[in-house]
Amino acid sequence: MRTPAASIGVIGGGQLARMMHAASIGLGLRLRLLAEGPEVSAAQVVHDVVVGDYTDPETVAAFASGCDVVTFDHEHVPTQILHDLETAGIAVRPGPEALVHAQDKAVMRERLGALGVPCPANRVVADPAALVAFGQEHGWPVIAKTSRGGYDGKGVWKLDGPAQASIPFDGLEGLRSGAVVIAEEFIDFSRELSVLVARRPGGQAVVYPVSETVQTDGICTATTTPAPGLRPDQVRDLQAMALRIAAELGVVGILAVELMQARDGSVVVNELAMRPHNTGHWSIDGAVTSQFENHLRAVADLPLGSTATLAPVSVMVNVLGGSRADLLGGLAGALAADPALRVQLYGKDLVPGRKVGHVTALGDEVEATTQRAWRAARYLMGDTDE
Amino acid sequence: MRTPAASIGVIGGGQLARMMHAASIGLGLRLRLLAEGPEVSAAQVVHDVVVGDYTDPETVAAFASGCDVVTFDHEHVPTQILHDLETAGIAVRPGPEALVHAQDKAVMRERLGALGVPCPANRVVADPAALVAFGQEHGWPVIAKTSRGGYDGKGVWKLDGPAQASIPFDGLEGLRSGAVVIAEEFIDFSRELSVLVARRPGGQAVVYPVSETVQTDGICTATTTPAPGLRPDQVRDLQAMALRIAAELGVVGILAVELMQARDGSVVVNELAMRPHNTGHWSIDGAVTSQFENHLRAVADLPLGSTATLAPVSVMVNVLGGSRADLLGGLAGALAADPALRVQLYGKDLVPGRKVGHVTALGDEVEATTQRAWRAARYLMGDTDE
Repeated sequence: MRTPAASIGVIGGGQLARMMHAASIGLGLRLRLLAEGPEVSAAQVVHDVVVGDYTDPETVAAFASGCDVVTFDHEHVPTQILHDLETAGIAVRPGPEALVHAQDKAVMRERLGALGVPCPANRVVADPAALVAFGQEHGWPVIAKTSRGGYDGKGVWKLDGPAQASIPFDGLEGLRSGAVVIAEEFIDFSRELSVLVARRPGGQAVVYPVSETVQTDGICTATTTPAPGLRPDQVRDLQAMALRIAAELGVVGILAVELMQARDGSVVVNELAMRPHNTGHWSIDGAVTSQFENHLRAVADLPLGSTATLAPVSVMVNVLGGSRADLLGGLAGALAADPALRVQLYGKDLVPGRKVGHVTALGDEVEATTQRAWRAARYLMGDTDE
Repeated sequence: MRTPAASIGVIGGGQLARMMHAASIGLGLRLRLLAEGPEVSAAQVVHDVVVGDYTDPETVAAFASGCDVVTFDHEHVPTQILHDLETAGIAVRPGPEALVHAQDKAVMRERLGALGVPCPANRVVADPAALVAFGQEHGWPVIAKTSRGGYDGKGVWKLDGPAQASIPFDGLEGLRSGAVVIAEEFIDFSRELSVLVARRPGGQAVVYPVSETVQTDGICTATTTPAPGLRPDQVRDLQAMALRIAAELGVVGILAVELMQARDGSVVVNELAMRPHNTGHWSIDGAVTSQFENHLRAVADLPLGSTATLAPVSVMVNVLGGSRADLLGGLAGALAADPALRVQLYGKDLVPGRKVGHVTALGDEVEATTQRAWRAARYLMGDTDE
């Protein structure tokens, strides 16, 4: 058996790193954080914090020199910096060759196409005229995306016709260099799904149940796990596809495969992420082993844990900054109303619309469990007088 | 609704504080640690660590000045220091008037006796002659205990006859000042049980299922929850007794009531603890709300969470320092053998016999679940060639 990593460097101090830290404690792993600032979400709770710029090669190299392995809270670390770490003998998980598929949607689409994974028709378009040509071929509306730097609905446009074809190219200026525009067939999906895989360096992998996800304005706002209304063979096919993508791309850690399901039941891949993912937050309370623990086990090269569910249904709802000035009062009300409610708060300032936490309700059936979770989230956001 | 505390000071940096920190992260509470040294168990994982001596009034006052409320990893903080904190306007939970019942077994026995709670016959004895007199009255062997400063089997003696009556008085010299010797009737118990209560300042309280606990050489080594073989009315009576003790003593936080069950089924109280307790570690993985989270909710004055179990049976086994030089290799083996195993490691040096972690197995029936948990613990300890 290979020697597991004892010391894990996490680049990025958001809520994913914060929840990784909570999971690291029981495993006895030492977590070291490279944070954007001294008060960001994870920096409030991790012992060993370095504040610095993850785009600066020297900062990252100095940070990583004390770690057995480096992993990520986000996918924005420049590829060259990751190659430099590997050259210096530090394990980077997921490695840069895998991570590029989550960093660059053009690379991801090309690779998934080559693998025969179902995707929307897509093409890199160099200018508005090429985008119009794609629209004439595949019909309008067209989805346009920047290949790099988009998140939470930013860098994605729904274009109704040729008159809007220049919009994504105007938007490119504010985004990181190297980005191109991808035109994609509009999928009139009935719902979105997500499948998470955890994979170790040697190839051991586990897959979580398929989740149904609700996106509002490009932000994941809720998930239901297992996704209702899927046949067992559909679930197996989607899980097998996610496992295959993780293996083909050489992912180490969590791979999230975001899917769109069309009204005819067919499914295409929308996005890939290579880190714990919002659509897996339910697993903290609803699975034997959370996505955060399995991400750490994978990057530390420890055997992966069971992804079995602890209840027939888990519903996760994000808490967004709302009308409340602080969360503690809302927390007291939400906990009083539902003693079985599970809450994760991220230690973030309450900017309206920003993800500041999530709640999870476990239950026996979808409707009542969904109502409990939404009621708690609305209470925390201050959207109700209950 | 009262304002919950956002910032919680924890005095003592052992594994209980470490596991409290893991539970604090989701609640968005800020945990500040007064640690015995920079590398103790909790100091490795908490962000805000002050290293200092908890018996020094100025150190504790300076530490606590930044906190809304102070609570404990252990029960050894001098009572006067806690009174001084309260005088300075800092909430101490549990408060010194309650905590003394966990600090001083003579005070505890007197109070429980006055409340009519079943206890072994007991008496404070000033000298060996008084101890002999107690033995003549109640029969030998006699259990002698120091009233203060004992833990994990230290400060407790089983005396077979008058010839041994001076032993506990010799032992007193090494223990903290103010300690007296208590003589107690020997209970030939068939097993030990434990009931945990969490209680808020206003009186809201929840009670966990009764656990059966296995003690080896005075150290808790395993628990089974719920305790097998209790009738529902016995469970209710024991839970009601624990809730009553918590209320009468004004406990805030976790109260652990350790019990001895005699061969006739009757039960007497052995010890009280007012902090998360080894016999409640199963709740991290086996209950909707762990004892650590409910301790924090209680001291922060947040509504308490459900104590419902997540499986028919949870078996916790302590991992003691054994023949292994490091735990990471054992961890890999234990996790590989049982993907559903839950592990908590404490970041401690592997001194033989020292508690360095615990494992929890959840299952449908006692025997197989017990075997899984013990097998994993033995593997981690290096006690097997598996």
